[in-house]
Amino acid sequence: MIIVMRPGVSEKEIQEMVKRVEEKGLKTVLLRGTNRNVIAAIGDKREIPHEYWEAFPGVERCVPILAPYKLASREVKPEPSVIKICGAGLGGRKIGVIAGPCTVESRQQIIEIAQAVKQAGAMALRGGAFKPRTSPYSFQGLLEEGLEFLAEAREATGLGVVSEVVSAEHVGLVGKYVDCFQIGTRNMTNFLLLTAVGQTRKPVLLKRGMSATMEEFLLAGEYILSQGNPNVILCERGIRTFEEHTRFTLSLSVVPALKELTHLPVIVDPSHATGRRSLIAPMSKAAVACGADGLIIEVHPEPDRAMVDGQQTLDLNAFAQLMKDLGPVAQAVGREL
Amino acid sequence: MIIVMRPGVSEKEIQEMVKRVEEKGLKTVLLRGTNRNVIAAIGDKREIPHEYWEAFPGVERCVPILAPYKLASREVKPEPSVIKICGAGLGGRKIGVIAGPCTVESRQQIIEIAQAVKQAGAMALRGGAFKPRTSPYSFQGLLEEGLEFLAEAREATGLGVVSEVVSAEHVGLVGKYVDCFQIGTRNMTNFLLLTAVGQTRKPVLLKRGMSATMEEFLLAGEYILSQGNPNVILCERGIRTFEEHTRFTLSLSVVPALKELTHLPVIVDPSHATGRRSLIAPMSKAAVACGADGLIIEVHPEPDRAMVDGQQTLDLNAFAQLMKDLGPVAQAVGREL
Amino acid sequence: MIIVMRPGVSEKEIQEMVKRVEEKGLKTVLLRGTNRNVIAAIGDKREIPHEYWEAFPGVERCVPILAPYKLASREVKPEPSVIKICGAGLGGRKIGVIAGPCTVESRQQIIEIAQAVKQAGAMALRGGAFKPRTSPYSFQGLLEEGLEFLAEAREATGLGVVSEVVSAEHVGLVGKYVDCFQIGTRNMTNFLLLTAVGQTRKPVLLKRGMSATMEEFLLAGEYILSQGNPNVILCERGIRTFEEHTRFTLSLSVVPALKELTHLPVIVDPSHATGRRSLIAPMSKAAVACGADGLIIEVHPEPDRAMVDGQQTLDLNAFAQLMKDLGPVAQAVGREL
Amino acid sequence: MIIVMRPGVSEKEIQEMVKRVEEKGLKTVLLRGTNRNVIAAIGDKREIPHEYWEAFPGVERCVPILAPYKLASREVKPEPSVIKICGAGLGGRKIGVIAGPCTVESRQQIIEIAQAVKQAGAMALRGGAFKPRTSPYSFQGLLEEGLEFLAEAREATGLGVVSEVVSAEHVGLVGKYVDCFQIGTRNMTNFLLLTAVGQTRKPVLLKRGMSATMEEFLLAGEYILSQGNPNVILCERGIRTFEEHTRFTLSLSVVPALKELTHLPVIVDPSHATGRRSLIAPMSKAAVACGADGLIIEVHPEPDRAMVDGQQTLDLNAFAQLMKDLGPVAQAVGREL
Repeated sequence: MIIVMRPGVSEKEIQEMVKRVEEKGLKTVLLRGTNRNVIAAIGDKREIPHEYWEAFPGVERCVPILAPYKLASREVKPEPSVIKICGAGLGGRKIGVIAGPCTVESRQQIIEIAQAVKQAGAMALRGGAFKPRTSPYSFQGLLEEGLEFLAEAREATGLGVVSEVVSAEHVGLVGKYVDCFQIGTRNMTNFLLLTAVGQTRKPVLLKRGMSATMEEFLLAGEYILSQGNPNVILCERGIRTFEEHTRFTLSLSVVPALKELTHLPVIVDPSHATGRRSLIAPMSKAAVACGADGLIIEVHPEPDRAMVDGQQTLDLNAFAQLMKDLGPVAQAVGREL
Repeated sequence: MIIVMRPGVSEKEIQEMVKRVEEKGLKTVLLRGTNRNVIAAIGDKREIPHEYWEAFPGVERCVPILAPYKLASREVKPEPSVIKICGAGLGGRKIGVIAGPCTVESRQQIIEIAQAVKQAGAMALRGGAFKPRTSPYSFQGLLEEGLEFLAEAREATGLGVVSEVVSAEHVGLVGKYVDCFQIGTRNMTNFLLLTAVGQTRKPVLLKRGMSATMEEFLLAGEYILSQGNPNVILCERGIRTFEEHTRFTLSLSVVPALKELTHLPVIVDPSHATGRRSLIAPMSKAAVACGADGLIIEVHPEPDRAMVDGQQTLDLNAFAQLMKDLGPVAQAVGREL
Repeated sequence: MIIVMRPGVSEKEIQEMVKRVEEKGLKTVLLRGTNRNVIAAIGDKREIPHEYWEAFPGVERCVPILAPYKLASREVKPEPSVIKICGAGLGGRKIGVIAGPCTVESRQQIIEIAQAVKQAGAMALRGGAFKPRTSPYSFQGLLEEGLEFLAEAREATGLGVVSEVVSAEHVGLVGKYVDCFQIGTRNMTNFLLLTAVGQTRKPVLLKRGMSATMEEFLLAGEYILSQGNPNVILCERGIRTFEEHTRFTLSLSVVPALKELTHLPVIVDPSHATGRRSLIAPMSKAAVACGADGLIIEVHPEPDRAMVDGQQTLDLNAFAQLMKDLGPVAQAVGREL
Repeated sequence: MIIVMRPGVSEKEIQEMVKRVEEKGLKTVLLRGTNRNVIAAIGDKREIPHEYWEAFPGVERCVPILAPYKLASREVKPEPSVIKICGAGLGGRKIGVIAGPCTVESRQQIIEIAQAVKQAGAMALRGGAFKPRTSPYSFQGLLEEGLEFLAEAREATGLGVVSEVVSAEHVGLVGKYVDCFQIGTRNMTNFLLLTAVGQTRKPVLLKRGMSATMEEFLLAGEYILSQGNPNVILCERGIRTFEEHTRFTLSLSVVPALKELTHLPVIVDPSHATGRRSLIAPMSKAAVACGADGLIIEVHPEPDRAMVDGQQTLDLNAFAQLMKDLGPVAQAVGREL
């Protein structure tokens, strides 16, 4: 940690600051520069946030040297983690595609989709039962009934099911049905929820908050890991920017950047990121090409009759075609589908 | 609602789209333009999100005419709402300042601060007991004990207390102690929590999500209102942008823009927005000057010894001075402090 | 164009507005809704900006139906444009890679690089001679001498040369040496410069402004086209967002989104977008996978001795390896390198 | 400067890096931490950009301690600069308001406006003659004729005139007529233009780039200062963010943040920032309240007949009223109008 003192700060303030740093068990080196005095603090106390040090009056700013997360880091675990959902792995050589409708609408709908996406090569089935909706007047999902239909679809196809959990108090209920929790972008900083799924051992598909930095995203994963659950899958789903041609801005560079720092698998959601059906296929290919371990894609037999998010949903044929087209891209980067 | 059809769409597709719009109970006018065909849909069905219409294959985009919220709107209730916290009102001529530490640290600390901010003219006391923290390794608050200390501070001073609630399941517990719930930026889209506080009648101080548009912010307020709780206070606290000189970007123009659209009071949090002690006073004055109904400010006797967020906290003297300096600004815009 | 009138506007104001719209040669349809009155204006007057209509007092907002650009649009020219630089084409089946150093440093340096990138399969040579630098104290380039060295590198290798022009008054000078002008992100809205290169017939590699929407980017291209120069190449190079793990955020979804709207070739600059050497290869592959027509990449024999931007530069071996690795990705999406 | 080495870097790489830093004339201290080795470099070589150091293979990142600008800094000149336009000063106790139309339309128009804004208390007259327009099909201004009309308005009223210069080659021409150059947001990084106005001694009103950080803004000012022209006025005019309720996001916190760092006057443009007439008055008051030295506001006798930007323009009465209302706000913060 590097503490930069303000210009013109007194010798006494510098010495007091040195003392306070040492009180926390860090060693210090005082660097007297031409225009600034700097205190270098040596030791690993990354649990103290850098803002703590910036509260002191003589301090201009504090620059952390170590990342604030540990368990998520490759420094702690260099080899990639492979996380299994009903036997199918994410994070190894094989790229996994999770597919299904935005929302479970009926037993028949979800079973039909499950069979179709399985045949096309999907590794797991997604489907929303508890839906976080921006407007209180929008359809909020089938709730537990939706989870029951998902479980039936698993029985019919053998595909693991992934569904969103929106509150710590639902973790028990949702966990009875699903093979992998999904935590949505609006809940990436719902720390009670992160803690609750961290206390299970089920895989957690954690979506990046739409305004989260990469470091904040890794810290959200660290919440889950720090409770003892090692099964965290990170998912880039678009960030909020000034762009208007897509609903969010898909930031694919975060995929290889994350993979440098963490052993956790990283997947991409091109449906929510773009909000546009025609962009799902090209952005899926791009995600695989830059090193994503998987994809999560919205699929519906009749997207224009879907209750939610039809405009960003592929129909069954388009999904089957995309799966065929992704194979050569995966091979081109040394992976397989 | 205006539905713009893609160029080259067939007559049959246009007619089918017209039929679907009319099936929802809307009247249509078909506008045949030089380069595009447009369907104007007349009637108030704002509960259907515009993305719904964009799922149909021939549709290029759909432009809503009406805002998706109703109860929050000045069209429904033109006169401003005045919301009371322990008898002190927000939203009228008098500007209210809520002050206190980021985190309740001890009985003595919170009572000392409560007395000081009351004397300086604050209308209510803030203090965190349940703290949402970005890192799992950071201090998470005193929990219920913190709420008890807040309640004691209320008894000692008569100031209403405001504290954050982070989960729907805590609403009962927190509601036993506080006079106003606070919902933080990371929970603005925690729809279960919005629904839960909506089912009480206690005031709710709702902070804007750090990447929420003004419309999404109003829809979050609408969630609470739609459950029957009319006591919603909106709080701008900074948005995430590329700027680096502050922690967030305080977007003050949202204050007068909100007040054109909604009858709800609008306040500003300069502490979290800027993350810099030296900017709190100037941004507080700016907030009052552009029409804010109040402020929420972090205050601590020794900011450099505060457990959380000391770098954005005023000491007691600086707060008392700010209160004095705000009076003339309030008067200059026809308000009082 | 759709003009939404404010609620409560008088009949007289509506009629006056109708008259003003018709004075501009548009036909009108007046739509009387439940909560709003709307004037639909039919006809193609896209040269009138929508803000013009929003200046009238009774108008809430104006929604344009037609894009404000024409010549760049696929509606005007459906087939893709192939643009040649010294005989090598961009925009067809073959993907083109432009490579070279950020800055021309010496005759020997640029000829060595030109030979190496040619051998690796590059289609053209890039190199900066006039450098726009954020700090006045940074190296500003070799100016005309740098252009002379580029021309010698062309003679030595046959590769076309691409170099930045930063001012309308330099267009003549730079045009004497280069085969393709480059316009940098900081000049995308330098309209005099766009006009000046539009009056030549040389290809122009136009980089997207770091905060330009897709529409503004196309309008910048339209400036050049509207002067009679059809040889415009669009280049995504990253936008400014809150992200910190890269210098800018590479927004790859703009590639397929642009290709839906325009016939112009679209290429990607992964060096400037990410600012990180290790991300160049994965993002190059992603760009090709989502449909880019080409890439522009910084290459230097000794990146850590480069005068500018070494941290985002590949060495010659890494570039040759990337070219080999890109081939299969191109083939996987039906292209070739 | 602090250079953080990658984990696992060899002793040889560390020693080589130390040597390279010392070769640049800096002293070094090597800090051996638990997880990282860090090289502290002591001395003032701020002209070497931090990216330079990040190009070396063993380097994880480089953290500069000193700001990259000097002449703009309060460290070099602690007392505030007062800059005069035709005798009226900006940067002292008195707040200055520059007002006028977006575009000069005719002799009569500009003289009428000049007289009105002078009477209302404006310190200078603005008016565009060379207009940078996003669309090639929009009105581009009256060019030199517009400048002549401005000069006549100065003769008629004694007000100094401010007008935009969009290219280095126009500096001579525009300088013949105006008392203060304006450099627009789209030209903040037009370094040739900055250099050219820096070689005059006329005041320069420099608008912040819509995606410029505060540091980049100060570096743009430094370009002008470094050429010998000390008369730079900084102007916040809104940044590009995801917000939709205004055209840009007015970031007022940059005003007090700039005034901590620089001696240059800082003013605010609420017209372009918000793009909405109704927000000009509240945001003008906020700007003054947080310490702005002045404002630049668009004024037109008939905003709905203005050729450009009428939707963000005040009429003459509204401007006169605003000037009256600003007086008490200025007094409330110890200034005068």
